[in-house]
Amino acid sequence: MDFTLNTFSSLVEVALAGLSYPTVAPGLFAPVRYTLESGGKRLRPVLVLASYSALSKAEPSTAINQALAIEMFHNFTLLHDDVMDRADIRRGRPTVHRKWGENVAILSGDAMLTMASQLLAKGAGDRLAELSECFNKTAMEVYEGQQLDMEFEDRDDVSIKEYLFMIGLKTSVLLGCACRLGAIMAGADSAASDAMYNYGFALGMAFQLRDDWLDTFGDPAIFGKEIGGDIVNHKKTWLLISALEAEPEELPAILAEDLEPQETIEQVKTLYVRHSLGDRCQELALRYSAEAKGYLDKVDMDVEARAFFAYLADQASARKH
Amino acid sequence: MDFTLNTFSSLVEVALAGLSYPTVAPGLFAPVRYTLESGGKRLRPVLVLASYSALSKAEPSTAINQALAIEMFHNFTLLHDDVMDRADIRRGRPTVHRKWGENVAILSGDAMLTMASQLLAKGAGDRLAELSECFNKTAMEVYEGQQLDMEFEDRDDVSIKEYLFMIGLKTSVLLGCACRLGAIMAGADSAASDAMYNYGFALGMAFQLRDDWLDTFGDPAIFGKEIGGDIVNHKKTWLLISALEAEPEELPAILAEDLEPQETIEQVKTLYVRHSLGDRCQELALRYSAEAKGYLDKVDMDVEARAFFAYLADQASARKH
Repeated sequence: MDFTLNTFSSLVEVALAGLSYPTVAPGLFAPVRYTLESGGKRLRPVLVLASYSALSKAEPSTAINQALAIEMFHNFTLLHDDVMDRADIRRGRPTVHRKWGENVAILSGDAMLTMASQLLAKGAGDRLAELSECFNKTAMEVYEGQQLDMEFEDRDDVSIKEYLFMIGLKTSVLLGCACRLGAIMAGADSAASDAMYNYGFALGMAFQLRDDWLDTFGDPAIFGKEIGGDIVNHKKTWLLISALEAEPEELPAILAEDLEPQETIEQVKTLYVRHSLGDRCQELALRYSAEAKGYLDKVDMDVEARAFFAYLADQASARKH
Repeated sequence: MDFTLNTFSSLVEVALAGLSYPTVAPGLFAPVRYTLESGGKRLRPVLVLASYSALSKAEPSTAINQALAIEMFHNFTLLHDDVMDRADIRRGRPTVHRKWGENVAILSGDAMLTMASQLLAKGAGDRLAELSECFNKTAMEVYEGQQLDMEFEDRDDVSIKEYLFMIGLKTSVLLGCACRLGAIMAGADSAASDAMYNYGFALGMAFQLRDDWLDTFGDPAIFGKEIGGDIVNHKKTWLLISALEAEPEELPAILAEDLEPQETIEQVKTLYVRHSLGDRCQELALRYSAEAKGYLDKVDMDVEARAFFAYLADQASARKH
């Protein structure tokens, strides 16, 4: 089979478009369709299918429902996170709670979580217990990560170590879980399953750190979002926390000033550059990409599969949007 | 074994108190403990244990995790419903979103739904697929019921048929599911499992209609809540919808007036009495109780078990709180 991003993401798009919904309360499912059709990278379901294909001779579509389960879960977390963050825009469109109100957003999100469980079980056969254990454990970790992220907003003493722990929970475990679900469906042994999980986890760390970097140092023409949003929102990213450690007086003073957003961004960026924080953040992302690739050596797979996962790992810390 | 409400509910209380929670983000789990410790009738987990015990020779505690799963799910729906209803008080204490804020309420609720899935899988062995199918299907129906309930708020033409359909989804399916989970754990055949589900469903209908009746005609000294809350909130119960059909002019006129709450309650109650709606509501509840008992005849069980389920069915439409 053709081991490309396009092969897998096309499978995902077709399957998502073909999902059927209960007809009893259509008002509950319009927001689910809306959320799923608004795109995104489909990285998580692609990881399920790729991991499955790397470790099995069967068609990748054998694991399509588990791939959809992960995508459904991911979109559920975005939907509820947007309610919690009072976010107005997601992927260029009004968020669900802006469009349908908060109650529908909460309830449709709940339905998405249960639909994710239903998809996980579909075609799982006797692997359901193992799939569920990984999926539910990961879901709990994602909530814990979100809870810590919210708690960090009210704290000024968050350390880099705590930050990395938090993004590990909020972001990386789900990418690890995606890889493991594919491995479980392929009937892989626990060594291969663990290695693929660790690959996905490290990939997630690289991905999130590159996210932090892009938000400040990305190319506005390619990034697709306003540059500097994290700074304006005082979001505790790797960059901001590192700058707080390096400039415990000056950075809070800048943030406390009543400046134009563009002026705040410029002044904070100057601090970042003074301490080479952009470069150091990027170096850390690259280190996680390398770590991810290292885990691939522990798994027996075709050269095309290996090249594909290595490409994803490199992309995680090199992408421009 | 001793087939009493107390036997089963004691097992549930002890198991709930013994639940352990992740330690990473304690802020996420304090609301879960708070919600679970605030009591309630524990009817749903009792149904799981009783149904299991009626159909199996093993200790009821064999199905304790599935009982806790249903109770966790039920409390999750109450938590999120309270956010959606902006309710301030639940079981005499501040609601979670009043105590910890809305974001924590949403996220803790999400965690409860996943914890319910985890509990469902615990000790399920090769019955997990069947348990999950029933549990997830029921969960979707409960959301659909809640969605319809919210949509009914903005409509003046809700029929009794639609109302019964809605409470079937919002309330009754979960009691049916509780009975079925016990039957599945006991390895019952599908005829017994279906009969127990139908018993639970009819029990739920009796329970909800008695709820509607109690809110208007209950004894204030025993009911434990203010009488007339549904009327003051214009809640579309069986009584209000029936009265709207009988008095399409007078009832809306009363509700539109700017009266003291007690005066509104008195005037609406007068309409209810004029058309014997209290009696008719109660008759319907009794009919569902009888229907529930009828399903018991289709299941082979001990005389104690049968008496217990019959007692619950009678209680559903005779309880005073």
